[in-house]
Amino acid sequence: MNPFVVIGGDAAGLSAASKLKREDPDREVVVFEKGRWVSYAHCGTPYFVKGEVESLVDLTSLSSDEIEERGIDLRREHEAVDVSTDEKTVTVRGPDGEFEQRYGDLLLATGARAAEPIEGGDLDNVFTLHGLDSAARIRALLEEPSEFTVESLGGGGYVDEDVVRYGDRTPPETVAVVGGGYVGVEMCEAFDAWDLDVHLFQRPDSLLPEFGGSVGERVEETLAEEGVEVHIGTEVEKLSGDGAVEEVVTSGGSVSVDAALVGVGVRPNVGPVENEVELGRSGAVAVDRYGRTSAENVYAAGDCAEARHVVTGESAWVPLGLTANRAGRAIGATVAGEHTPVGGVAGTAVVKAFDLECGRTGLVNEEEAREAGFEPVTVTVDTRSRSGYYPGAAETTVRLVADRGTGRLLGGSIVGEDRAAVRINTVATALESGMTVDEVERLDLGYAPPFSPVWDPVLVAAKVLNGKL
Amino acid sequence: MNPFVVIGGDAAGLSAASKLKREDPDREVVVFEKGRWVSYAHCGTPYFVKGEVESLVDLTSLSSDEIEERGIDLRREHEAVDVSTDEKTVTVRGPDGEFEQRYGDLLLATGARAAEPIEGGDLDNVFTLHGLDSAARIRALLEEPSEFTVESLGGGGYVDEDVVRYGDRTPPETVAVVGGGYVGVEMCEAFDAWDLDVHLFQRPDSLLPEFGGSVGERVEETLAEEGVEVHIGTEVEKLSGDGAVEEVVTSGGSVSVDAALVGVGVRPNVGPVENEVELGRSGAVAVDRYGRTSAENVYAAGDCAEARHVVTGESAWVPLGLTANRAGRAIGATVAGEHTPVGGVAGTAVVKAFDLECGRTGLVNEEEAREAGFEPVTVTVDTRSRSGYYPGAAETTVRLVADRGTGRLLGGSIVGEDRAAVRINTVATALESGMTVDEVERLDLGYAPPFSPVWDPVLVAAKVLNGKL
Repeated sequence: MNPFVVIGGDAAGLSAASKLKREDPDREVVVFEKGRWVSYAHCGTPYFVKGEVESLVDLTSLSSDEIEERGIDLRREHEAVDVSTDEKTVTVRGPDGEFEQRYGDLLLATGARAAEPIEGGDLDNVFTLHGLDSAARIRALLEEPSEFTVESLGGGGYVDEDVVRYGDRTPPETVAVVGGGYVGVEMCEAFDAWDLDVHLFQRPDSLLPEFGGSVGERVEETLAEEGVEVHIGTEVEKLSGDGAVEEVVTSGGSVSVDAALVGVGVRPNVGPVENEVELGRSGAVAVDRYGRTSAENVYAAGDCAEARHVVTGESAWVPLGLTANRAGRAIGATVAGEHTPVGGVAGTAVVKAFDLECGRTGLVNEEEAREAGFEPVTVTVDTRSRSGYYPGAAETTVRLVADRGTGRLLGGSIVGEDRAAVRINTVATALESGMTVDEVERLDLGYAPPFSPVWDPVLVAAKVLNGKL
Repeated sequence: MNPFVVIGGDAAGLSAASKLKREDPDREVVVFEKGRWVSYAHCGTPYFVKGEVESLVDLTSLSSDEIEERGIDLRREHEAVDVSTDEKTVTVRGPDGEFEQRYGDLLLATGARAAEPIEGGDLDNVFTLHGLDSAARIRALLEEPSEFTVESLGGGGYVDEDVVRYGDRTPPETVAVVGGGYVGVEMCEAFDAWDLDVHLFQRPDSLLPEFGGSVGERVEETLAEEGVEVHIGTEVEKLSGDGAVEEVVTSGGSVSVDAALVGVGVRPNVGPVENEVELGRSGAVAVDRYGRTSAENVYAAGDCAEARHVVTGESAWVPLGLTANRAGRAIGATVAGEHTPVGGVAGTAVVKAFDLECGRTGLVNEEEAREAGFEPVTVTVDTRSRSGYYPGAAETTVRLVADRGTGRLLGGSIVGEDRAAVRINTVATALESGMTVDEVERLDLGYAPPFSPVWDPVLVAAKVLNGKL
């Protein structure tokens, strides 16, 4: 039988490869990864830059030895440059030249890349945070040259030697973060930990817009309290400088900086297959509930693929870690003969902004809900995280959105300093089963003074929302 | 119209009275409360004893003025001693003697009382923790006589003057806690905060047995680490002493103590109505989904009433705070003319044991599941609360129980030091909608390294359980 070929050696790809090998140990499995890093936690990179995670190797979940032990034929620095679904071949470019690889089943797990760079994005000391190499460069730049060594990054031989160039430079004093999404917000915290003056530029009128305004406002307040200069509604027109970046030119004036991090979103990597499989409206690969693309025996999973949204029932592109891991694992099982759905997405996401915890799930913004055919009704309610008399009760703001016609819960967000993020899972679980606000209001949630008021913050918001329906 | 009469001025009773007054301001509402305290947070009393909550008044959620402003006719120190559902009257004993009160609708919100006391339970310095008076006495005893004043308890005039007697005594050095349920575990922490030597006696072979063994073991370890002497599988035969308690006599020998807290569970208060309305198997008042008893226009809510269990569909008696508040509020709405279900119970509960957080919901023990007609399959899985590389990742043990035949999730428990308790709400929400383990495994829960691994602890356990089904 022809091998199971995987393009991309990160979450989706290696989950699929591992699962198939476990279920069908005799099947040949080949994974092509264009870089040197495999199986790493992208979401951990801000904390590596911050210095809270010491070593790059800590961010990898599988070592080479472990991958080898699983019987997976992993080829690093091998890029899939073309796919022919007629011939069932992949054209691969490796250190020893180009070759054709036949496949029996193919998984596209090519991930995403940083969105179009802005003008001046190629200046020195300008970074995107995509992959461990970029994380390594940024931390190399932040460390004092006298203390920097490649070994201090702990890359186990995989560190791009280019980082030495950054390690030798004088650390910046002022940094621009362009883009106030997850990465931008997390990187403000990371740079602040190195005592840099941090300027955050956000074009929309709110940080983390996909979390809804109530979260964005609290995050903005928190960043400001921590000393981050937040420029909301400010478009960065270009970065300028002579060699290295020196200035951020915005719609509201210019700011001098020594370094810049550009985090304005990601796009799916579909280059090698864009004419071979159907793409969805988002530009990512369209798949069915088993992760199958329009081409026979070709699957797609992770940041390059769409998934079914549990609220709208439509395809959506939500590039997040759990989705990638789960879809990869399911496809591994399916290829092994046990048909396993990849699961839906609710767009559940959590993010930390200094001491603030934020969570969101489903349809949080009314416009998005209306586009999906709902008539949204929204409440934003300030609650407390514990019984009011118990020390440490923290303001916790819950936003819930429901459909007026059916009373169905559509989504929500939560923000606060005390256990706010994990509380979003209650809402995510309710979405998955299509609960009405009435049903959510009657959920039997846990109550004890140190952890929650009698009415959990989610229940309080459901109660208020129910009154508006 | 005849008035809405409520027996019991705590969570269920005052929630119902307030809701009815809001919906139907002209209706006369009379609340009889046999004690002096109303609307207080029973669950907060261990933290008052501990000293973390300073004043008794902090534990009350409504003041007399607020209750009066709502137009509720509240009569403290009025005990309902008899009910005639034929005559639609309540016989009330108050400071000025006995009288008959007619009702149009009646709510039984009589709560629960401490279960049968053990031999020697009437000795001095032996307490149950039931209500603010007992909490006041215990804290009075713990305070140094030279520093004690009734005012320091902050009772706003409602403190039982009997506490002075305890305030004058020398504080104990060694205390016995009899019973290792919620109250027992919380009180170990409270006594430990006053530097007492604490002995905890538990007859069953596990602490918090309704949370399952995996939680009991972790709690036992934690209590031991904190210096509590835990006597598991040890039956307390009696307390003995001359006037005040001096010794705990157990199946495993005797221990000298200066004080004892007996927390061996509660029983529903149904005295005044036991021959007037149908009781359930538990001994609590049987109700339908609107909280209606077998007698016309008579409702029951809170710790004296049963409720429908969301997993078994059968009546269950789970005396907890949220259930009482919600049922009271629903009955207030129903009496006002808007039929509102009281909601089911999943038996969701959370408890803190020093730094350990515990949660449980649904059917956690296999025996209980078998009795309900299921074929239970159980897993207990050790997971981590955050990405392994992120500082502060804490061992989090998840137990999940499912039905082999249908794959339906039946219940679970979680224990750990990092945000473990609130995670039980994910499981509780899944129970409410009757999810299968398959569906739980595919939930889109939040992931970010500071809050959760890629696969949330609940998802990890569901994955393992699914493999066993």
